[in-house]
Amino acid sequence: MLDKTTRVNLLYDHYGALLTEKQRSFVELHYLEDLSLGEIAIQFGVSRQAVHDHLRRAVDQLEQYEAVLGLVSRHMRRRAVKRQLAEVIAGLPVDDDQQRRLLELVGELCEDGNGTGGGDGDV
Amino acid sequence: MLDKTTRVNLLYDHYGALLTEKQRSFVELHYLEDLSLGEIAIQFGVSRQAVHDHLRRAVDQLEQYEAVLGLVSRHMRRRAVKRQLAEVIAGLPVDDDQQRRLLELVGELCEDGNGTGGGDGDV
Repeated sequence: MLDKTTRVNLLYDHYGALLTEKQRSFVELHYLEDLSLGEIAIQFGVSRQAVHDHLRRAVDQLEQYEAVLGLVSRHMRRRAVKRQLAEVIAGLPVDDDQQRRLLELVGELCEDGNGTGGGDGDV
Repeated sequence: MLDKTTRVNLLYDHYGALLTEKQRSFVELHYLEDLSLGEIAIQFGVSRQAVHDHLRRAVDQLEQYEAVLGLVSRHMRRRAVKRQLAEVIAGLPVDDDQQRRLLELVGELCEDGNGTGGGDGDV
């Protein structure tokens, strides 16, 4: 089971671009940069409760996207398969160049990060 | 360049679950099952123009999701890398079992299909 911060970070990596700009700011400050609700409230001139509500709604929305698209769970599965592949490749009777080439291509296959920042959000 | 139907099918594979039920029906009937706008209009008891507008908005929405999340372009890149990997694997001095195991794991790594039908849509 992932802890909450890791979970939100993963969700944010995959669906952050679908949040509003304000939601993105709050999620980044709280979950990525570890600012408290109070600190964010001061920075934005809003109440601590408002920050709390914005964050809760943002995380709910990220979880709803995951429930529908499942990109995070696919990412986790892919990571597990990548580990298995690395083990299999390490045991092959191939030379260093071939091994490096295989691992490089497997790495490219696993790049599934981060729509965040790629677009303007608010679809 | 993909033709329109192939493009919409790919978009629908990745983001269809985010459309409303009615949008999904229209997209499926027109782009997957090749019904004409007129045939769909009769089936749903609406005007041909209404079907046209619904479809246009649905496809616009799919394209907006792609602009933000880029899952289809990632899918295409992954397909190209998978082909390269298959070629490299075919040229390795390994036995049939190892080759089969490698291709199997690479196949799992490439499973990125289809959120459609996995959820209830309308996030």
